[in-house]
Amino acid sequence: MPRPPVKDIAFTLRQIAGLDAAMEEGLFPDLEPDLVEAVLEEAAKFASERMEPMDVVGDRQGARFDDGAVTMPEGWRELYRDWTAGGWNAIAGPAEFGGQELGTALAAAVSEMWNHASMPFALGPLLTIGAVEALDKHGSDELKQTYLAKLVSGEWMGTMNLTEPQAGSDLAALRSRAERRDDGSYRVFGQKIYITYGEHDLTDNIVHLVLARLPDAPAGVKGISLFLVPKFLPDEEGNPGKRNDVVCHSIEHKLGIHASPTCTMLFGEGTVDGEEPGAIGYLVGEENRGLACMFTMMNNARLMVGMEGVGLADAAYDRALAYARDRQQGRATRLAPDAEKSGAMSPIVAHPDIARTLLTMKSLTDASRAIAFSCAIAIDRARAYGKSDPDKAKAWQERANLLTPVAKAFSTDAACDVASMGIQVHGGMGFVEETGAARLLRNARITPIYEGTNGIQGIDLVARKIGQSGGETAAALFAEFDETLAELSRRNTPEFGETGRCLEAALADLRAATDYLLECLKHGETDTALAGATPYLKLFGLTAGGVWLAKGALAGDHAERVALCRFFAENLVPETAGLKQTVVRGAASLSAAHDLLLAGAA
Amino acid sequence: MPRPPVKDIAFTLRQIAGLDAAMEEGLFPDLEPDLVEAVLEEAAKFASERMEPMDVVGDRQGARFDDGAVTMPEGWRELYRDWTAGGWNAIAGPAEFGGQELGTALAAAVSEMWNHASMPFALGPLLTIGAVEALDKHGSDELKQTYLAKLVSGEWMGTMNLTEPQAGSDLAALRSRAERRDDGSYRVFGQKIYITYGEHDLTDNIVHLVLARLPDAPAGVKGISLFLVPKFLPDEEGNPGKRNDVVCHSIEHKLGIHASPTCTMLFGEGTVDGEEPGAIGYLVGEENRGLACMFTMMNNARLMVGMEGVGLADAAYDRALAYARDRQQGRATRLAPDAEKSGAMSPIVAHPDIARTLLTMKSLTDASRAIAFSCAIAIDRARAYGKSDPDKAKAWQERANLLTPVAKAFSTDAACDVASMGIQVHGGMGFVEETGAARLLRNARITPIYEGTNGIQGIDLVARKIGQSGGETAAALFAEFDETLAELSRRNTPEFGETGRCLEAALADLRAATDYLLECLKHGETDTALAGATPYLKLFGLTAGGVWLAKGALAGDHAERVALCRFFAENLVPETAGLKQTVVRGAASLSAAHDLLLAGAA
Repeated sequence: MPRPPVKDIAFTLRQIAGLDAAMEEGLFPDLEPDLVEAVLEEAAKFASERMEPMDVVGDRQGARFDDGAVTMPEGWRELYRDWTAGGWNAIAGPAEFGGQELGTALAAAVSEMWNHASMPFALGPLLTIGAVEALDKHGSDELKQTYLAKLVSGEWMGTMNLTEPQAGSDLAALRSRAERRDDGSYRVFGQKIYITYGEHDLTDNIVHLVLARLPDAPAGVKGISLFLVPKFLPDEEGNPGKRNDVVCHSIEHKLGIHASPTCTMLFGEGTVDGEEPGAIGYLVGEENRGLACMFTMMNNARLMVGMEGVGLADAAYDRALAYARDRQQGRATRLAPDAEKSGAMSPIVAHPDIARTLLTMKSLTDASRAIAFSCAIAIDRARAYGKSDPDKAKAWQERANLLTPVAKAFSTDAACDVASMGIQVHGGMGFVEETGAARLLRNARITPIYEGTNGIQGIDLVARKIGQSGGETAAALFAEFDETLAELSRRNTPEFGETGRCLEAALADLRAATDYLLECLKHGETDTALAGATPYLKLFGLTAGGVWLAKGALAGDHAERVALCRFFAENLVPETAGLKQTVVRGAASLSAAHDLLLAGAA
Repeated sequence: MPRPPVKDIAFTLRQIAGLDAAMEEGLFPDLEPDLVEAVLEEAAKFASERMEPMDVVGDRQGARFDDGAVTMPEGWRELYRDWTAGGWNAIAGPAEFGGQELGTALAAAVSEMWNHASMPFALGPLLTIGAVEALDKHGSDELKQTYLAKLVSGEWMGTMNLTEPQAGSDLAALRSRAERRDDGSYRVFGQKIYITYGEHDLTDNIVHLVLARLPDAPAGVKGISLFLVPKFLPDEEGNPGKRNDVVCHSIEHKLGIHASPTCTMLFGEGTVDGEEPGAIGYLVGEENRGLACMFTMMNNARLMVGMEGVGLADAAYDRALAYARDRQQGRATRLAPDAEKSGAMSPIVAHPDIARTLLTMKSLTDASRAIAFSCAIAIDRARAYGKSDPDKAKAWQERANLLTPVAKAFSTDAACDVASMGIQVHGGMGFVEETGAARLLRNARITPIYEGTNGIQGIDLVARKIGQSGGETAAALFAEFDETLAELSRRNTPEFGETGRCLEAALADLRAATDYLLECLKHGETDTALAGATPYLKLFGLTAGGVWLAKGALAGDHAERVALCRFFAENLVPETAGLKQTVVRGAASLSAAHDLLLAGAA
């Protein structure tokens, strides 16, 4: 039973992302340090003792499809029942509907643990929480009364129905349609694909949130509305009643997350005997404003997919470290200077190249966590300031907006890299499925794709986020980085090595690249800017991650944190020099070579 | 039926790696340009028409194990029969035993095509060829007469039996033992794991090459001998006769290469009724000199695993490009400046970020191919000079030695990255197994592990290869790079952009890192040097790949090659700056943080 890294999680949350500071400011009246620690400890216990053992079962059995029904792996119903009974689904939900309102930051922290234990399990509730947020913010009182308490507790689960065969990243192309009915309800028709947890037997009802077009809707994304379509229509007591005209047509055979059913859903195919075709749906928010509602779900989901990345990376590191400490191979001079002569074998962790790999894994994971938690705290601060201080609320919301694509993409790219390195540390054993290392890579590989591909995150960061408030949002964050680096420069000790110099160079690279991109956008050179989107996002993540690890090293004053921060700064952060060059100078060569690819595309 | 990139392969072989120059010098009396082109065309035809369609069957069915027997996927026997009937197994084999002696370079080129079509299929013959080389170089005349013709034609297949549970990268730890018999034969006992194609039904006999210790052997790697152990002992006509005491105990359940049986082999368990236990084996080479014989197999195998990487990367690029040209999503201003207004969708290849991904895939693949073919030509040149010019033969052999770890590790790391990017280009479709993109990643993931992990390749490069002839081997290669860069500087046109500047900076980084490592080694600071082994290998590969792409761009004078070379130089090569810094300065921080990992290892 590998245990999630509770100490690292608590430290990052409280010291680096600043939960302690926020608690001291009184922004979280319901939270205090002891409670935070207790919640994290309990989550770690449930994750390692109950959830983790079910992950391998889930991977082997997978979700099974038969004639419209999906059967989840053995033991998963009980696991889900006990997990919701423990109140874990309700941790951040609104108090009015039974939630504990402990905030996004704490929710992100416990989410890392669920993903450490079983990412395919944690994925289902992630979507339920998104549905809760969308309904809480945009739903009518009636919808809230009918659905929210059950979604908050986890008695029912929620889904997000966006994608259609011709409409993936490009929602403007979606064709599912909705018709108005006289009673104020709607009938929804269409096919949706890649619907995570679209059908299963964990709960008695499933609440689908579905994007569709009204007959008189404008073309493009301004003509999309959001509908709530329950699998079973609640009866007068609010219990699952009549079956609705929505069915699961099939599930996908995937590289990973086998236990997470990825469904093709059919709405309005006339599957209910004696009824006219049409899935009964209820409007969420206003007509044609569905995209705004969906973004409420999606932004949270993006951060939470980032947490999937962190949790998977954690898990890969844990396994690889345990293996490297155990596996004896070769003679390392580090542990026993006379090993070469004595012939005694060493654990492979003693070899420099294995150490480099493990430290790369650990520092990438820690940097990803710091970015994601910083994003989560920004969300909580924006909410806490709310209407009392609109300026601050706006500034923190923009901070959250800025960090969300980085949290999503940097963490999930890191998860794939770290899981791959985890396999490598295991050698041949890593390629054998029984070891479990390969499963983590198979599961991780979806995370850079869904909830907006990482390419889309880069575009979002460059085209929308760095230009917020005329660039002030980014500038304010960089100014905070300056403070940390100034503190580092004051407190510098030999143990930090060249950490300060490396991070200062990175921050200069980040500023130069940001200025360049803002200039491009100002002059309408969108393609030039977007050509550098992916390297820019990585440059942003490496710099932010490095500075925040330094902040932690300065705050905690533990030798371990200093050593890891230094390793990251001296070994991984220097890549920013090349990345900056790619952002600032790479567009011309990309444009020239692009024609080569387009030759066959016309 | 995706077709391997024959033009790119021929061009790289002839112009970049220098097959044409070698033919002009008369080093390949049996080769001429028309023959080379004809061989490549025929191979491409067989690969795309016959082999590629069987790859998906192989992946789905996998090799099946039942009671010691392994059944290969449907159609694979026929495929193998026809492939060997076409003479493909014999392409580089010795003429005395029916081989065509067309050289390692051409063998590598066609190998890329087999791996493009079905890497799990191509893997089996790779080991047979290794067995041919070991026997040809070290075997007694009797062994050669009995086995070589059948191995050269492919009528029988060969295997490499090195790994044991406690002896993977560290062969000093191996325990399998051999006893002498009065008739000059030996009896072999022990367990071997991860034996590729250790058992199957493609051929009537399987020839195992097995490392084991004699009772009076010295400890460590100087006490290892190599034995030939046939599955069936040849009868007087040379046909498979009596069963030998070697059996397949089980096969592994793996992330990828499902059709390639990865066997646990038991030698000498007394599995032949009425016979004393002991697998009958024959010594190859001298007693206790087995490792030298094994390295003959292994060096070739390392280059050929590099070709697996190139072939898989090819295949991933082909699929991703085809998908990106077909899939319509979003509105790209590049193809239609008024797309944003007209609402017409664009193929995703028109979006800059997708273009960046595809060009990264393509240029990494091409750079890997250039490195691998250059290594192959060096092997052929060394052989061609042979005894006629021992100095040149030695210089070329050392060039081959230097490039082998780079060809193996850079190409296979590239294959994993390119296959992963290929999934990403497909979006959600990439995660669905039916698309085939995920299969390529699953297959690619073993290549950085077997035939010496890529970490071991880095160590080999740093600890043994760059110091050959006092550093002259590396210096001579870098001097050749200077020539290409001087030519680039002379011929510079605006289309090359900053290619020259980027490559000159990279070569300076490579020289600085090399000098630093050689200094470390001179002063016995082995751990410091090895700490930078992996980043150094990448730095070497990026620089060599970039220079050789430039050589091709200068030779071919095609606009496409110039554009791609420039893209690589301006977008990927700049990473060398960070890599050099990591090599030269990263060891101290690694050492400091290493203690953190060792804490739990004592």
